[in-house]
Amino acid sequence: MKYVLGAKCVKCGKEYPAVPSLTTCACGGILDIQYDYAAIRRDFSPRELARNPDCSMWRYRPFLPVEETTPPPPLRVGWSPLYRADRLGAELGLKRLYVKDDGLNPTASLKDRASAMAVAKAREAGADTIACSSTGNAASSLAGNAAAAGLSTYIFVPSRAPKGKVAQLRIFGATVISVDGSYEDTFELSRAAIDRWGWYNRNAAINPYLSEGKKTVTLEILEQLGWQVPDFIALSVGDGCTIAGAWKGLKDLHSAGFIDRLPRLIAVQAEGCCPLNRAIQTGKPWQPMEENTLADSIAVGVPRNPDKALAAIRESNGLAVNVSDEEILDAMRLLGRTQGVFGEPAGVTGTAGVKKALELGLLSPDSTVVSIVTGNGLKDVHNGIRAAGEPMLVKPSMDALLSAFAEHHITPKERNSLL
Amino acid sequence: MKYVLGAKCVKCGKEYPAVPSLTTCACGGILDIQYDYAAIRRDFSPRELARNPDCSMWRYRPFLPVEETTPPPPLRVGWSPLYRADRLGAELGLKRLYVKDDGLNPTASLKDRASAMAVAKAREAGADTIACSSTGNAASSLAGNAAAAGLSTYIFVPSRAPKGKVAQLRIFGATVISVDGSYEDTFELSRAAIDRWGWYNRNAAINPYLSEGKKTVTLEILEQLGWQVPDFIALSVGDGCTIAGAWKGLKDLHSAGFIDRLPRLIAVQAEGCCPLNRAIQTGKPWQPMEENTLADSIAVGVPRNPDKALAAIRESNGLAVNVSDEEILDAMRLLGRTQGVFGEPAGVTGTAGVKKALELGLLSPDSTVVSIVTGNGLKDVHNGIRAAGEPMLVKPSMDALLSAFAEHHITPKERNSLL
Repeated sequence: MKYVLGAKCVKCGKEYPAVPSLTTCACGGILDIQYDYAAIRRDFSPRELARNPDCSMWRYRPFLPVEETTPPPPLRVGWSPLYRADRLGAELGLKRLYVKDDGLNPTASLKDRASAMAVAKAREAGADTIACSSTGNAASSLAGNAAAAGLSTYIFVPSRAPKGKVAQLRIFGATVISVDGSYEDTFELSRAAIDRWGWYNRNAAINPYLSEGKKTVTLEILEQLGWQVPDFIALSVGDGCTIAGAWKGLKDLHSAGFIDRLPRLIAVQAEGCCPLNRAIQTGKPWQPMEENTLADSIAVGVPRNPDKALAAIRESNGLAVNVSDEEILDAMRLLGRTQGVFGEPAGVTGTAGVKKALELGLLSPDSTVVSIVTGNGLKDVHNGIRAAGEPMLVKPSMDALLSAFAEHHITPKERNSLL
Repeated sequence: MKYVLGAKCVKCGKEYPAVPSLTTCACGGILDIQYDYAAIRRDFSPRELARNPDCSMWRYRPFLPVEETTPPPPLRVGWSPLYRADRLGAELGLKRLYVKDDGLNPTASLKDRASAMAVAKAREAGADTIACSSTGNAASSLAGNAAAAGLSTYIFVPSRAPKGKVAQLRIFGATVISVDGSYEDTFELSRAAIDRWGWYNRNAAINPYLSEGKKTVTLEILEQLGWQVPDFIALSVGDGCTIAGAWKGLKDLHSAGFIDRLPRLIAVQAEGCCPLNRAIQTGKPWQPMEENTLADSIAVGVPRNPDKALAAIRESNGLAVNVSDEEILDAMRLLGRTQGVFGEPAGVTGTAGVKKALELGLLSPDSTVVSIVTGNGLKDVHNGIRAAGEPMLVKPSMDALLSAFAEHHITPKERNSLL
């Protein structure tokens, strides 16, 4: 790992060598991987990157903590599309909006970026079994990425996890433990089991490599924008690991001279579960909250990565915005109708936050904003139908169709021109 | 359209100019788009293609029937991953197997390729409204691709369509008509409505441009294989449009000198609904069948594109293989467990057919085979759970976990090495 200097505790500053099975600091603090940015700057440039045909997160190898000899894991993760979202921007009254659809990853969420990294590091560690706890997406992405690499998985999810994610886990052949309790209970049980059996740990708040995988989402955004720095990047926040990773990627690019300034983050949480945003908003230490939102992926009452997440929001001079479940469902409809992007509830929460921030006057309509959709709506069809409603049911005849249109106040559009 | 000569009826041979709103021949036959392959060969080469950074189906523009000035529709369709599937190949006893995961398209199925083409051609036609009937995937892909382009859609699906596909349709803002009848009933009602209101027609068996979009799947496979021709390409067959498109792509490459021989197709249908394969197997004209399979996307009792599909199978000296619903569910588990790919039932039917063909001795273990997964399993979570079962439910304590492991005969793997 030519450019990796080591790992450093974000709490006490203690330094560690970057061995593959690294977990937390002796003080309990989370570690952060350190790079030699001067060397990266010397050896690597946007121009060189532009010539790399690799359409995956592994195009950013110099910024990633893996051995040069470690092959990329089998599933193709990353290089998700960044859409210019003019139709949605116009509806929201925002000059320039982009949507990064990270639901287009192999297991349909951003978490594939961290799981691919976990698989690479587990292989380096010589491990054949990986375990994690998760609200669902980290779990299904680990199960899929590990299956493709021939590794076994033990996965702990709260029993509230949506059916789509559970189906993925089972299909990928994971040993799935559905925990009859909160995410907090689930996390603690996974921790005890990992301690007992010594599996490779893919809990993002413990394994410091995982946010290095997640950071590829912002590396990609900036490259896809031609290194033009947006004013804001909005995303949903649960455990805190994803926003921490997103910020790390931006700082990497800045430190290596790829960008000349840093965007501000918009951290969006659900009103019913916003311990990190509340800490930002009140200036007090974070306190646990209930997990009271339909956005299951970010229903995290006891965030596992508060230090890195709060530092990311503060260092970026970020906005902390809370949205209601109704606003989340509205964002699902909005993104679908205007941009053809179907996100799961937590996936669209960033977009809901952009709308809210505009309404609250926290965000200028002249801003350039990127909203990251972190997971595919097909993972949670129940809430998709809840957001958008059932279709009309019609008997197979023109009379029945005309009656149904009349009943639903639909006047069919006629052909708009002689074709 | 520099390289398009026109359209020709596959039944009577009548020729038509390639106007954007082209439908079927006056004789009822389906049209096929004709190209000037000598000109393509003169202007375009694998080497030039290798330099194209476009990671989407539009990298193959010289092979596509769109005006040079028509912008690609907004969603990024195509360039799905082709995985070398050694683990699955070993389980099946096949020397070289590849899996093309076309569930990694924007709305999670291969149909995005056709819908993107429909949106491009509807724009050329100046239409603002598109309609189609579909077992589900063509519908949701049209709804998503059209929404992103700001076009309205009227979509007809049989009421049996899985929840995931219906949720997509609703979220994308389509006017959805759920028809209480078979796919045949659904198709006929959509035809009557399109006749009445004059919408742009995205029924793949009527609009000849759509299989030109679908063919990009085989253009990609061959490029991803470095133009090394596999022995077989396996895929599921319903209406017949996809296999017709796949074959068209292969013939295009052959005619333009990109490949020097043609692979054979493996056409896989469900035992309970295999009118096209039955025609191949018996040598008789095809006959309607009941739609008796859980693989909803290929439950097509009256295929709408029999001529092109049967010609594709015959011209390629292809295999026609039927599989049971149990074999389809087994293929879902196999692909998930060995390769981390989660396909919907019809999506994995091609793979089920590869296994079956090996078992029947139709396929030599020495063959090189590509299996196309045509849709994501998240679209049909119900059958995912049916294939793989529910997870174990455990109270949040180590004692409860140990009991559950014992009950399920699970002996947790210990750490395999000192890390």
